[in-house]
Amino acid sequence: MIYFDNSATTFPSEGVRSIVREYLEDEVSGNPGSLHTLGVKADKLYRECQTNIARLLGADADEIIFTSCATESANTAIRGYVSRNKRSGNKIISTRTEHKATLECLALLEKQGFEVIYLPVDKAGKPNLGLLEEELSKGGVALLCFTLVNNETGSVLPIEEIVDLRNKISRQTAIYLDAVQALGKMKIDLHGLGVDMCSFSGHKIHSVKGTGILYLKSSVKIDPLIYGGGQQKNMRSGTQSLMLAKAFEKALSEAAASMDDSHSDIAKINAYLRSELVKRDAVILSPDDAVPYVLNVSFSGFESETMLHCLEIYKIYVSTVSACSSKAKKVSYVLLESGVDRKIAANAVRLSFSRYNTMDEAKEFIKTIDEIYDTFLVKH
Amino acid sequence: MIYFDNSATTFPSEGVRSIVREYLEDEVSGNPGSLHTLGVKADKLYRECQTNIARLLGADADEIIFTSCATESANTAIRGYVSRNKRSGNKIISTRTEHKATLECLALLEKQGFEVIYLPVDKAGKPNLGLLEEELSKGGVALLCFTLVNNETGSVLPIEEIVDLRNKISRQTAIYLDAVQALGKMKIDLHGLGVDMCSFSGHKIHSVKGTGILYLKSSVKIDPLIYGGGQQKNMRSGTQSLMLAKAFEKALSEAAASMDDSHSDIAKINAYLRSELVKRDAVILSPDDAVPYVLNVSFSGFESETMLHCLEIYKIYVSTVSACSSKAKKVSYVLLESGVDRKIAANAVRLSFSRYNTMDEAKEFIKTIDEIYDTFLVKH
Repeated sequence: MIYFDNSATTFPSEGVRSIVREYLEDEVSGNPGSLHTLGVKADKLYRECQTNIARLLGADADEIIFTSCATESANTAIRGYVSRNKRSGNKIISTRTEHKATLECLALLEKQGFEVIYLPVDKAGKPNLGLLEEELSKGGVALLCFTLVNNETGSVLPIEEIVDLRNKISRQTAIYLDAVQALGKMKIDLHGLGVDMCSFSGHKIHSVKGTGILYLKSSVKIDPLIYGGGQQKNMRSGTQSLMLAKAFEKALSEAAASMDDSHSDIAKINAYLRSELVKRDAVILSPDDAVPYVLNVSFSGFESETMLHCLEIYKIYVSTVSACSSKAKKVSYVLLESGVDRKIAANAVRLSFSRYNTMDEAKEFIKTIDEIYDTFLVKH
Repeated sequence: MIYFDNSATTFPSEGVRSIVREYLEDEVSGNPGSLHTLGVKADKLYRECQTNIARLLGADADEIIFTSCATESANTAIRGYVSRNKRSGNKIISTRTEHKATLECLALLEKQGFEVIYLPVDKAGKPNLGLLEEELSKGGVALLCFTLVNNETGSVLPIEEIVDLRNKISRQTAIYLDAVQALGKMKIDLHGLGVDMCSFSGHKIHSVKGTGILYLKSSVKIDPLIYGGGQQKNMRSGTQSLMLAKAFEKALSEAAASMDDSHSDIAKINAYLRSELVKRDAVILSPDDAVPYVLNVSFSGFESETMLHCLEIYKIYVSTVSACSSKAKKVSYVLLESGVDRKIAANAVRLSFSRYNTMDEAKEFIKTIDEIYDTFLVKH
């Protein structure tokens, strides 16, 4: 089996599985909210976990909030910020190429009376920064919502320029960053970046599903999404799972330790695939400066779903559009918004890699593509 | 170690641990939203899981929504219902002895302009049904929020009478039920009960933490709490965890299979403890008709926290007030609202049992109480 669908979800690493097994058996199963030793011990380990994750992300421990998934993190950040900071403005700036977690929150806020300005993006997926500057200058912008690495194309956001613009023109505007697909793929230094809120998902970096994180800069105040017993300094009520927090920590520390080697390996795989695929008249849709972990490619003569099913005959797993919405939509809105021709976009397939993928798999993939063309394509 | 704090959290059962280990290793780790075989297989197993849980709760599969915890379920139900059903009224009826997950949602809704009527409860923790009838008759009640089994006292709600009153007087009023502490302790037949929404937690019945359920009657429409990729029929976005869903299913099926035997064993333990404790001048605060799994008792001469720490010297673990808020409050608001004298309430300790507790542990507990009185109590 060749698994090239790591941007949809990953398999838990051996290290993560081992941690989950350990915390599953361990007697430290107390409720971190309990007063007795078991609770206190659970709470201490939980805080250690928070501290370690914070260090790996360039943040303070108190800025790390555990959530159940990145979608929850996005909802908490976006809706919680504008709800709490009503005086900072009625406008939000974003793009139409965000993940559905962001887009659906923005759609809800539009219904509630917020004005959302969607910046157009170019072929490389970059939002129009001239327009951003213009809109920021008009004032009344509460929030910017962007994605650091696009989940369908691997396109990288010019975040430094965006933060600079914000700092120069509109310091009261907060920045929310979806960093789900960036995590483990590039060095993330949250304090250095200067964003206010940032969401992360564990299961995209070989943790288990059910583990998300919200980074909330200490000076930023938001309303919680989930009210109750007041856990996590009132920002996220609900009994915390030490097991899931440890799984995230482990996945993140493994990703950090292997990042440089992995990046260079995957860059080679990506370059090899690009060069072989263009020889076969495929159109590479990921921009040249995309992260190497995502390769969006359009195959002539095969609609996305047909190619996906052809590939799985050979036990090769890829995606059409992003997994979250793949059952609902046939053609990627991200590609269409980036100006890709509908016919090209309709044939797009996303290959997404992790450090466990190898050059041998890439070669096998190319061989299989040739076989698929030979076997299935009705020649024109 | 004697663990009498099962209403705070439980240890995962061997069956649950085994399922978690299995799904951790299994290749079926696809995203249920993915189109390829791994995704389809994950989705199929996920639906089977939903069906099995629904059957055990007397509901339909489509009425079961997986959440990260009961607090999330409560927020989704209470806030989602009134947000979606604005025409059904501006009033909500509840009590002040609900769990914080409910109380904090209600406090938020009060700020948003809803009127919340808190019914007084009697010594047995039962809300005043005469007043309920009166308030329902006035009209404009959107929602009732009650708890089937109180987490601090084990007090059981007269839910049939409440549903009857609603059906007779105000059919457009919805009923939300917190059934967290009832799950696994009494037979729950959701269709039979006639409630509209109901929340459950996995980690209170020997599943792992991070697993909650919201029952949403098929005819009831609510706004989601978490927006995004549209998973779970748009009611709860975010990638689902098959592993966590299977853990909940396993815990629930084990609880169902052992319920009758366990109930009778725990009833004996409870009766034994009550009779021995009253001989020692302790005041039993759980009502006579409480579920046997919770025994709230006030020890003369020891404040709650002192007794908790004395007991843990002997590796006996109990709670003071409910774990979620135990760090914030010193005296249980549930007991005070039930009319318990503040001095008695200040000495209250909650023992909470599961099917893994034994009569030998109960005897050891009584022996330890005697030792604690002999050793620590400064005689008056």
